[in-house]
Amino acid sequence: MAVRAAVAGASGYAGGEVLRLLLAHPEVEIGALTGNSNAGQRLGALQPHLWPLADRVLAETTAESLAGHDVVFLALPHGQSAAVAEQLGPDVLVIDMGADFRLKDAADWEKFYGSPHAGTWPYGLPELPGARAALTGTKRIAVPGCYPTAATLALFPAYAARIAEPEAVIVAASGTSGAGKAPKPHLLGSEVMGSMSPYGVGGGHRHTPEMIQNLGAVAGEPITVSFTPTLAPMPRGILATCSAKAVPGVGAEVVRAAYEKAYADEPFVHLLPEGQWPATAAVHGSNAVQVQVAYDAAAGRIIAISAIDNLTKGTAGGAVQSMNLALGLTETTGLSTIGVAP
Amino acid sequence: MAVRAAVAGASGYAGGEVLRLLLAHPEVEIGALTGNSNAGQRLGALQPHLWPLADRVLAETTAESLAGHDVVFLALPHGQSAAVAEQLGPDVLVIDMGADFRLKDAADWEKFYGSPHAGTWPYGLPELPGARAALTGTKRIAVPGCYPTAATLALFPAYAARIAEPEAVIVAASGTSGAGKAPKPHLLGSEVMGSMSPYGVGGGHRHTPEMIQNLGAVAGEPITVSFTPTLAPMPRGILATCSAKAVPGVGAEVVRAAYEKAYADEPFVHLLPEGQWPATAAVHGSNAVQVQVAYDAAAGRIIAISAIDNLTKGTAGGAVQSMNLALGLTETTGLSTIGVAP
Amino acid sequence: MAVRAAVAGASGYAGGEVLRLLLAHPEVEIGALTGNSNAGQRLGALQPHLWPLADRVLAETTAESLAGHDVVFLALPHGQSAAVAEQLGPDVLVIDMGADFRLKDAADWEKFYGSPHAGTWPYGLPELPGARAALTGTKRIAVPGCYPTAATLALFPAYAARIAEPEAVIVAASGTSGAGKAPKPHLLGSEVMGSMSPYGVGGGHRHTPEMIQNLGAVAGEPITVSFTPTLAPMPRGILATCSAKAVPGVGAEVVRAAYEKAYADEPFVHLLPEGQWPATAAVHGSNAVQVQVAYDAAAGRIIAISAIDNLTKGTAGGAVQSMNLALGLTETTGLSTIGVAP
Amino acid sequence: MAVRAAVAGASGYAGGEVLRLLLAHPEVEIGALTGNSNAGQRLGALQPHLWPLADRVLAETTAESLAGHDVVFLALPHGQSAAVAEQLGPDVLVIDMGADFRLKDAADWEKFYGSPHAGTWPYGLPELPGARAALTGTKRIAVPGCYPTAATLALFPAYAARIAEPEAVIVAASGTSGAGKAPKPHLLGSEVMGSMSPYGVGGGHRHTPEMIQNLGAVAGEPITVSFTPTLAPMPRGILATCSAKAVPGVGAEVVRAAYEKAYADEPFVHLLPEGQWPATAAVHGSNAVQVQVAYDAAAGRIIAISAIDNLTKGTAGGAVQSMNLALGLTETTGLSTIGVAP
Repeated sequence: MAVRAAVAGASGYAGGEVLRLLLAHPEVEIGALTGNSNAGQRLGALQPHLWPLADRVLAETTAESLAGHDVVFLALPHGQSAAVAEQLGPDVLVIDMGADFRLKDAADWEKFYGSPHAGTWPYGLPELPGARAALTGTKRIAVPGCYPTAATLALFPAYAARIAEPEAVIVAASGTSGAGKAPKPHLLGSEVMGSMSPYGVGGGHRHTPEMIQNLGAVAGEPITVSFTPTLAPMPRGILATCSAKAVPGVGAEVVRAAYEKAYADEPFVHLLPEGQWPATAAVHGSNAVQVQVAYDAAAGRIIAISAIDNLTKGTAGGAVQSMNLALGLTETTGLSTIGVAP
Repeated sequence: MAVRAAVAGASGYAGGEVLRLLLAHPEVEIGALTGNSNAGQRLGALQPHLWPLADRVLAETTAESLAGHDVVFLALPHGQSAAVAEQLGPDVLVIDMGADFRLKDAADWEKFYGSPHAGTWPYGLPELPGARAALTGTKRIAVPGCYPTAATLALFPAYAARIAEPEAVIVAASGTSGAGKAPKPHLLGSEVMGSMSPYGVGGGHRHTPEMIQNLGAVAGEPITVSFTPTLAPMPRGILATCSAKAVPGVGAEVVRAAYEKAYADEPFVHLLPEGQWPATAAVHGSNAVQVQVAYDAAAGRIIAISAIDNLTKGTAGGAVQSMNLALGLTETTGLSTIGVAP
Repeated sequence: MAVRAAVAGASGYAGGEVLRLLLAHPEVEIGALTGNSNAGQRLGALQPHLWPLADRVLAETTAESLAGHDVVFLALPHGQSAAVAEQLGPDVLVIDMGADFRLKDAADWEKFYGSPHAGTWPYGLPELPGARAALTGTKRIAVPGCYPTAATLALFPAYAARIAEPEAVIVAASGTSGAGKAPKPHLLGSEVMGSMSPYGVGGGHRHTPEMIQNLGAVAGEPITVSFTPTLAPMPRGILATCSAKAVPGVGAEVVRAAYEKAYADEPFVHLLPEGQWPATAAVHGSNAVQVQVAYDAAAGRIIAISAIDNLTKGTAGGAVQSMNLALGLTETTGLSTIGVAP
Repeated sequence: MAVRAAVAGASGYAGGEVLRLLLAHPEVEIGALTGNSNAGQRLGALQPHLWPLADRVLAETTAESLAGHDVVFLALPHGQSAAVAEQLGPDVLVIDMGADFRLKDAADWEKFYGSPHAGTWPYGLPELPGARAALTGTKRIAVPGCYPTAATLALFPAYAARIAEPEAVIVAASGTSGAGKAPKPHLLGSEVMGSMSPYGVGGGHRHTPEMIQNLGAVAGEPITVSFTPTLAPMPRGILATCSAKAVPGVGAEVVRAAYEKAYADEPFVHLLPEGQWPATAAVHGSNAVQVQVAYDAAAGRIIAISAIDNLTKGTAGGAVQSMNLALGLTETTGLSTIGVAP
């Protein structure tokens, strides 16, 4: 019997991507689609790439429209997920693709988001130590942010192996879909094509505490993260260039071994052969992660680089992967590791 | 029992795309992968998006390496397919993604390709009248060119309904992958990003006689085609803007009715609701075709526009769709109608 | 003594481009900069590429703020220019970069713009027969639309030479800056990158009557224009692919001769050597126009293609070129024919 | 009397850009243009954006063709400049846009370039302490690499003020023109559009020792640089995200003051107002540099970011700026600080 799934916020990029994936998922039947300002519109006008759903009409996002589903994906603005989840009851699997339940530290939440902390749900990054156990059978999932997904998968093997100093420097380039579908002047095609620009520089980006939380937990000690996001002229993809000083005595072979160990059996993380480097195009539209690592002997640093699709593994694909675990399905069901390239 | 498929020319864009689709095809098992200058290399270095095949090594393209398969896809330079097909024997399904067997008229072939005509195979555009019957059970398929696929699907309903004058004007914009993977200065990213430019202007493009052949057969009379291809700054996609004068007495409703009739039951052609226009992003990576049509009363012309992914429906997807028919499988097996957008 | 120029609408793309050009103009001093919703803001925040003007603050667009200048450029929404021009008085050179004064036929205006016709000013396309005389010394200039500039320069030599039938087919691809800076979902970078899409299909685009007006005047007979604009994934540039049937007896040499005659002495129109085709990148940021023409003997059509920068020759460069004529300066003053490529 | 300039390597991107700038330089007359494989071709076919030079034909790069000029720009492959410079004699100003004479340390040269060290010429980055004096009147100039220009201008004020620890981390995104015009598969438009990817990771990029040389000289102590270049889907531009730990006791105000002091009078470096961040589009085609800096208190790091046009300030514009100094002209002659945006 099919799993019946609803998507709240179906007109945005995260909502559209989760629908794209669910349409290819053999165990899922798509139920209610809801929106706010777009309620009443045909999905075909809002998401023209989702032809099989073109004639579906968006409902309002209410407890009634979302009732009667096994799984509800929330692609809502920050701060709205708790109230919806409460109304859905404890037996429905609620998967929040927003930030509300990612952070454990209430003070961090309040500092970066400026609102009361709603709580913490199991974190939907199965590759992290212990994460699969926490996700199996859960009814609540907090999907990681796109940058934390990319950065954590690039760096955690180094921290897990205790070979990196606790000061990470992360510079990531993201495609523009990461900034959402609400029209703003600086996101116009005319502005972004041909341009690279940073934003949220100096520690202010909201994904910073999430990276610190992930990497610090693996490291077993507090760490700092200097994170600089940049907007790249492409619709999708994140390339995260991450580094940290190696602890004394560590060399290239130790570094390589740490990554080979971490990713020997991961179905979605592709540790590339030495000499080949990640490219976002290679994972476009897929749930795959390309990872590569190098040791810079002159600078004494470990350089770890990952490429993901910010909408797939970075949002909706990670959500579906975690849903599979929560529902007891094979983790890889309905998810592709093959990029759409060139 | 799985259909065993080989791909000759697996390092190029057409070869890579057919592999991407075959990896998702439930009835196909991927056999030999061959190349010429790239023989001996890992596919992971040549097609990094095809992770499941990363460790496969390209063989030389020979009768031996291609033997023992049920289906052989040929993605070879013009003029090489006939010799390979002959060696494979009459019981193997040979699908030529090159131009060698598309044209019926030997004089046309010789004029546009400058070499002796190799023959004519069943034409892999199932949407054309009579095409499905010709493809069912065949052992030889000539996959249409990407531009002819887009232009034929935009215009043939008008010719089938006898509502268009026999002089078509076609201006099409193609993503750069249509020009192939062989490195040439004018195809460098530095040259194509931010630029639109035409080529093969004035009737010289090799896809012109193929369009004339398709549309003339449907029209039941000789037609002329003025075709101008342009190179657009995107990796994939064709937008074909096609027009012809309407025959006297035809108006908007008759035009609309002709297209609704032609595409009422086509699984891959999406005649859009009135007021919505095709966009290549909406069919990115899919086998879907978006079509829309308008009647310009002031100019007396029918304007028909289609959007396809040049590598999918325009090459490898059309090839797999035709393969399904040839093998007696459901025509849509393994093919998606959902674009990867944004 | 310097010409003192004001720009109303300095925060948009047309306003920004005219400022970019005026900064390089040796005879002009930049005076008031005005805006509406952006009044009170630093130009540096709105147009970060115009460093020399970064500390200028936008005034409100009023008669007072625009008083005391020799030239006023209007980059305003449709329908607002007449009232402003009236207040400025008859001795100020007013250059309207909007559509208000382009059309001669009031019925055309009302049909396409839905408001009362404001009048007709000398048309700022100096390359048209008679245009330079009308522009010299004038105090009012209607700057042509970007598409009409590209299409007219591609086709008028054929009509001037009486070698083209009066039914033109024009398909043009434009960079996204042509759609302006007001943020709309379909203009987001995420939507436009990787996509080609048409709009205003079937005769509805407002630039259609302007093309008909220009080409019909040259042809000396009524003509029809089938015009399809498409949005291309690039910030700037228009490539206009234009064609018409040749009149009987015309061949390739006659066609070539017509274009060589028309453009023998034009400082901004580069009729390319045979075999070379226009590319928008080659005119990026410049006032140059690349034109090429071919005769398709099989289809009996003249194919004329032009490439311009929509913001430069297509808007602000054409405005400055016309200003030079109006002020009695050398026509090319302050304008470049060198593109910024790659 | 005009300065007569020749360009060796006029068919490539650096050569084309220096010609674009020299065409706008009021004191320069363009003399010989030379190439190797392209000798004998019209420049119009190779650099179609340089219309005023379209009919010039490339000569072979020989001592004879380059004789009789006041200035010779060399845009040659590594290792070829010394021999040419020697033949030109000591009285000709030779400006090498390649790497041959940038490094002071012969061992560094040999390690990174694998050939004997040719020597060291005055370094063409006038903004560095002492550089203007060394460039004034010189007959030999080594133009800096594009990445070292961006990174040095981002970070040297911090080192000059002794507020940064001697371990810099630099991640830079470059447009594809930085990789040159020789066609290679990974530089095809199909490959680079929609993709971000790193290369030369782990300390291997040849620009690393040049950055160390520049920043170490300013710091007055040895420093390390961890440098990761990435290829971005745009034709031009470098965004360099640079950071280093702040020395104890340094805070945001001290950091800001260091940058304000360093750039108070620089004609080409625009230290942005606080809160505004660099964007490569804003400097497209110009010699301007946008710089911004922040202090991340939580991570204890100074984050300095610069945006340049890699071909202008990063290559040909820096070359012309240095030429002006060498010839005793005003440093800014012929160079623009206005970007071509959007």
